[in-house]
Amino acid sequence: MITTDILIIGAGPTGLFTVFEAGLLKLKCHLIDALPQPGGQCSELYPKKPIYDIPGVPDILAGDLTKNLLEQGKQFEPGFTLGERAETIEKQEDGSFIVTTNKGTKHHAPIVAIAGGLGSFEPRKPLIDNIAYYEDLGVDYFIKDPEVYRNKKVVISGGGDSALDWSIILADIAEEVTLIHRRNEFRGALDSVEKVQELKLLGKINLITPSEVTALHGNKRLEGVTIEHDGEKILYEADHFIPLFGLSPKLGPIGDWGLEIEKNAIKVDTFDYQTNIPGIFAIGDVNTYPGKLKLILCGFHEATLMCQSAYQILNPGKKYVLKYTTVSGINGFDGSRKEAPKAVVQAIQ
Amino acid sequence: MITTDILIIGAGPTGLFTVFEAGLLKLKCHLIDALPQPGGQCSELYPKKPIYDIPGVPDILAGDLTKNLLEQGKQFEPGFTLGERAETIEKQEDGSFIVTTNKGTKHHAPIVAIAGGLGSFEPRKPLIDNIAYYEDLGVDYFIKDPEVYRNKKVVISGGGDSALDWSIILADIAEEVTLIHRRNEFRGALDSVEKVQELKLLGKINLITPSEVTALHGNKRLEGVTIEHDGEKILYEADHFIPLFGLSPKLGPIGDWGLEIEKNAIKVDTFDYQTNIPGIFAIGDVNTYPGKLKLILCGFHEATLMCQSAYQILNPGKKYVLKYTTVSGINGFDGSRKEAPKAVVQAIQ
Repeated sequence: MITTDILIIGAGPTGLFTVFEAGLLKLKCHLIDALPQPGGQCSELYPKKPIYDIPGVPDILAGDLTKNLLEQGKQFEPGFTLGERAETIEKQEDGSFIVTTNKGTKHHAPIVAIAGGLGSFEPRKPLIDNIAYYEDLGVDYFIKDPEVYRNKKVVISGGGDSALDWSIILADIAEEVTLIHRRNEFRGALDSVEKVQELKLLGKINLITPSEVTALHGNKRLEGVTIEHDGEKILYEADHFIPLFGLSPKLGPIGDWGLEIEKNAIKVDTFDYQTNIPGIFAIGDVNTYPGKLKLILCGFHEATLMCQSAYQILNPGKKYVLKYTTVSGINGFDGSRKEAPKAVVQAIQ
Repeated sequence: MITTDILIIGAGPTGLFTVFEAGLLKLKCHLIDALPQPGGQCSELYPKKPIYDIPGVPDILAGDLTKNLLEQGKQFEPGFTLGERAETIEKQEDGSFIVTTNKGTKHHAPIVAIAGGLGSFEPRKPLIDNIAYYEDLGVDYFIKDPEVYRNKKVVISGGGDSALDWSIILADIAEEVTLIHRRNEFRGALDSVEKVQELKLLGKINLITPSEVTALHGNKRLEGVTIEHDGEKILYEADHFIPLFGLSPKLGPIGDWGLEIEKNAIKVDTFDYQTNIPGIFAIGDVNTYPGKLKLILCGFHEATLMCQSAYQILNPGKKYVLKYTTVSGINGFDGSRKEAPKAVVQAIQ
């Protein structure tokens, strides 16, 4: 059982910034995310695209924003349960919560902050009869660790940036990379399209277009796929089939937690972004209230106000006086200290 | 008469970010500030101190945050009335407002956003009988442009960073810099104290401590000051006397605009941070509502939500659909365009 002060569901920008604001109040955080890495959409969907509306940051790549938020919170030593989806919540007698993921990992905390964005990102899956059987047995919808594919035969399917970029990366690692797509045209960054073209000419990527995987084979795990191309069916040896057809966000199991939902978002109060269940907060794109805008900068504000109420719940009756980081500095849970250079009081002769 | 869409009172971080968010909605801004430069407290009180709690920015000097906010908004070409304090507001028949400063500059806008921080920063003034007479005739509480002091005789009074730093800067510009302070000890950055010590030994700064200016002389403008030191009165030639005793924030004339005030802050609704007077908003440290925290990041959120209502007031009945800067890019009022690199759709042979 993982225990923490604030259990954050969703490791996107809002969830990550919560770690920092909670840390200033000496509260410890643990984050759960269905994606294999922190950053939410910023890391998974558009890491190389610029964001222009982070206040005080005229231009930053979404992937770099994630890095900076991780850096900002790291002295408060957050825990992570990644690649797992928060599935069930049980309220305990003392008012605390146990949250269990789809893989059975259990988390216990007095405060739950849902920073779930548009929901957990579920992969779009190809319509192949027995695909569910091979999931985690050769069929992967996300790539967690490229090393898994070293010296393996890999078939990647898809026509966008993910399919292009992973084909490029795995071309150096896998024994064989075959990229298939139901059209001849790919849609992605010019760089990536050109690089795949080059690797294809060098024989480092097999390209079969237009084509589709229509069947999967193998006994205990995936051993081959059937590729349909020009009306012909080709049986291809493959240790891995990686369909990268995009992700679609689903509110998912959180929708059944008894929270008041309006237009697929969780209703909260603007005092502290608490939901109708005391102790459960909802911050960032997942919540709704009069005037709500689904912007990262709003999530930052909501996370900050939320932490004040979390502090009050965890420290009943204790008065918290807001301190400015410029004045008070920051004491990390790892023993680090950041502070402004101190003024000296000194006579001049 | 200066005309604009949103007249922002206060050019601190919240006011500066409003320019950007308003610009995304094609609304033009003009800012008024009592200080001689944009940035509010960040520029005037602690430009060289680090801020650690700007989301996604682990560590930034307050002066650099100001620069970045100016950079982020510059394509929306904000106007500035600096070194003047907003004094009176008159509501026009059509619901718009005319705001006049203490120097008589008039501004006309349908929307007023008060981003006044803790109020306008008023200098603490020494108790010298005729000091008001010499204001702008040799007595300055702020330094707008160091060049004003070229080849002049300057007496600076004060014991903190401002007095130290301006003495250092003017030592290279003025004919003579005399620094006086009622104690021997100065309180400031170690660097600055050491630099003043060095310039004193080189004869580039006259240091008289402990001492005080007790009288001002001159006919049409300042010609000299009386300095009391060791019980003696010394008459000193001086073209300028610059007392730098710190600033104290005052809500000031805004307090008489008919706005609902609570604990020295303006009450607003969290839907759009509008005050009790329709068309006047209050954002950042100057406002109050349940759960309010006086943090820069909260001002950013408030400014953003406010701009949506400003848009509705200026474009009645028009529906605004939120666009993400990553997707839609940014069209500057100056003809500039920022946008993410476009995806290509291209066949791979």
